[in-house]
Amino acid sequence: MIKNINIAIVGLGQIGNYLLKEINKKKSDIEIKTGKKLNIIALSAKNKNKKRNYKINKKIFFKDPLKIFEKKKIHILFEAIGKSDGISKKVVEKALKNKIHVITPNKALISKHGDYLSKIAEKNKVNLEFEASVAGGIPIIRTIKEGLATNKITKFYGILNGTCNYILSEMEKSNKQFKDVLKQAQLLGYAEPGNPKLDLNGYDALAKVRILSALSFNNKISYKACLMEGIENISLKDIDIANKLNFRIKLLGISEMINGKLFERVHPCLVNKDTYIGNVNGVMNAVITEGEPIGESILQGEGAGPGPTSSALMSDLLSILRGNIKYPFGIPNNKRVDIRVFNYDNYINSLYLRFEVKDKPGVLAIITDNLAKKKISVERLIQIPNYKNKTASIVIITHKSYEKDAQNCIKIISKNKNVLKKPTLIRLL
Amino acid sequence: MIKNINIAIVGLGQIGNYLLKEINKKKSDIEIKTGKKLNIIALSAKNKNKKRNYKINKKIFFKDPLKIFEKKKIHILFEAIGKSDGISKKVVEKALKNKIHVITPNKALISKHGDYLSKIAEKNKVNLEFEASVAGGIPIIRTIKEGLATNKITKFYGILNGTCNYILSEMEKSNKQFKDVLKQAQLLGYAEPGNPKLDLNGYDALAKVRILSALSFNNKISYKACLMEGIENISLKDIDIANKLNFRIKLLGISEMINGKLFERVHPCLVNKDTYIGNVNGVMNAVITEGEPIGESILQGEGAGPGPTSSALMSDLLSILRGNIKYPFGIPNNKRVDIRVFNYDNYINSLYLRFEVKDKPGVLAIITDNLAKKKISVERLIQIPNYKNKTASIVIITHKSYEKDAQNCIKIISKNKNVLKKPTLIRLL
Repeated sequence: MIKNINIAIVGLGQIGNYLLKEINKKKSDIEIKTGKKLNIIALSAKNKNKKRNYKINKKIFFKDPLKIFEKKKIHILFEAIGKSDGISKKVVEKALKNKIHVITPNKALISKHGDYLSKIAEKNKVNLEFEASVAGGIPIIRTIKEGLATNKITKFYGILNGTCNYILSEMEKSNKQFKDVLKQAQLLGYAEPGNPKLDLNGYDALAKVRILSALSFNNKISYKACLMEGIENISLKDIDIANKLNFRIKLLGISEMINGKLFERVHPCLVNKDTYIGNVNGVMNAVITEGEPIGESILQGEGAGPGPTSSALMSDLLSILRGNIKYPFGIPNNKRVDIRVFNYDNYINSLYLRFEVKDKPGVLAIITDNLAKKKISVERLIQIPNYKNKTASIVIITHKSYEKDAQNCIKIISKNKNVLKKPTLIRLL
Repeated sequence: MIKNINIAIVGLGQIGNYLLKEINKKKSDIEIKTGKKLNIIALSAKNKNKKRNYKINKKIFFKDPLKIFEKKKIHILFEAIGKSDGISKKVVEKALKNKIHVITPNKALISKHGDYLSKIAEKNKVNLEFEASVAGGIPIIRTIKEGLATNKITKFYGILNGTCNYILSEMEKSNKQFKDVLKQAQLLGYAEPGNPKLDLNGYDALAKVRILSALSFNNKISYKACLMEGIENISLKDIDIANKLNFRIKLLGISEMINGKLFERVHPCLVNKDTYIGNVNGVMNAVITEGEPIGESILQGEGAGPGPTSSALMSDLLSILRGNIKYPFGIPNNKRVDIRVFNYDNYINSLYLRFEVKDKPGVLAIITDNLAKKKISVERLIQIPNYKNKTASIVIITHKSYEKDAQNCIKIISKNKNVLKKPTLIRLL
């Protein structure tokens, strides 16, 4: 590789702007480490004159990111716009076709078009790096691709969305309802002020799960239906009851191979308070991988924010500067296998069920009879009376059962006039 | 790099033998990932006919490891003998001088001769890789060199010796004395049956700290005196009392830069039970790094054993096969700075002190007066009487104080005839 490296940054929001500052700050350090001299030769964003924390050199500013390719030769391009399609995709596509290495933190883009883009990168013998797309400060992609390179990974799970983890931790700590904690998270910058839906409904975590699955199991990215549930319906009552049973509720992303079939899912989980994952609180992210021969590995760190994200972007930059040309997903595209998806009907698990019922004789029996009919066996049952309303909460932890049966059972029980609300179902880890 | 890669393994103990099996098992997987075809062309060990878990090809066996260089061209050599000097050093030296990449899990060798050997590697433009030398299954070296490449690391600490962590965890759990748990650890293969001293006295952890310091702070490996204390003197009594105060005792390796000076240490620490590190039990290893801009990162995994160690050796192998030629310590040797060592007299910390005394009036005053004279302020004081012997344990947790003053103070107090044993001092994290 040549000595002088020309760099372009497209997208100068919080991340792009912080990255620009970091590159300028660490130029000489990078030259020592890699022998390469960095020149930032093009910047692009919607608004040239927007107030930014770190000043930009307006002489190298392009309003249209597709124009940056016309002037000087670019060697490495950072895409930090963040869209799953549109201009983000066009810029990355054009760069790769022009034999320019691309680095991006854009999980929406990679989880949707990663297979397609990695083929272009491979064909043109350039890198497409996306360490920052999953769990910001945690070098999880590098760890799977390099640190655990020859391990057979069988399963991974983790806390992949800091916003949800903050909200759940804070509900437990401050005894506040979801809505109030969400507002607080928005004020603190932990949740998007406009539309935090993609964080809260599990979509963001699922995009990350899909990227990590492709890396872990050497398959193409899955686009098929997957179990995805967010935290919007988690009530303080469930957090309280879980707490008394020595559990915490966490939004987990989980992916595993079951008999050669991929089972990806994102949903709230009851996790034991004494476990490692039960103690990852606040905005922290953590990923646990199970591999052979390595055993269980844990990585934890800050999952988002410009600092950790830039750290990941810079690690990708150094990897490229050191001449580490790699397949984007660790192996050639033609060796990545098509996915066979696990049939959800075969999913067996322990479940937490909560029924809100009228407190009168026979109601408990309706629930237990129906569970028995479906052969769902009860591990623990707690009835919590509410004397004021003459109602009760019946909480059941089941032994491992087919979730399908439990769902059917809930439907039947719900129809009874003594059952006051839609029952709650939360899976155990 | 060429397509056919010739490999030699020197040392066929537990690690070398497992590695041999792994390479043979994963040859085709590695060819897919890297395009390289591996041929194991030389094996060497003391005893050709020793019974091994995995059979060796005796046609490529050399009794004298220095003879392996004479036959075919070797591209990558694994050194798995494990000595700090002697034949281990000679083989590695000769390989590097012959432009052969070297991969080793040998922490004794790297912590002692790493600077010298890395110069030879750099001069000959080959890799010297030692991911497996620190915390087996945790890709900590790769993470510091690559994942956190442009971060400024200010401090790291962790559990780097699984033997000690197992013993301390087990003492707490089973209420058994050090000696009994050590025997149990030896039976289970967690502690060396012959001479476990290098694990127990902190030396093993210190070697790892020195390697990680060099990587984290871009300095040469330190050989200077350092605070090193093992767990041989930790008594069940201290574990019990710590427990009641919501602490656990862990053997930690800690390294930080204080005003440009390096402060490396290994010693037992009182860590809060609610912290992350307080919950890493059994044979697990964990490393926590503090960096800027990334914040706190945590890595946890199995620290030893042939499986995790091989996983690390294989990750080094793949890194080399992918053409990732790197400086062994991340930057050129001439840019690595000489160390200035932190003056231990300036070390300020909170301390746990335990005095065994005769239970009679005035004894407590002797202790508190002496502490007051040295301006050591007490945060907590507990007196636990032992009515049977008319003795008492006086336990003190100090506010942050100069350790030097505390040591002097202990000396003076020890001389008092009412103080029955050498007082115990354990640092807080």
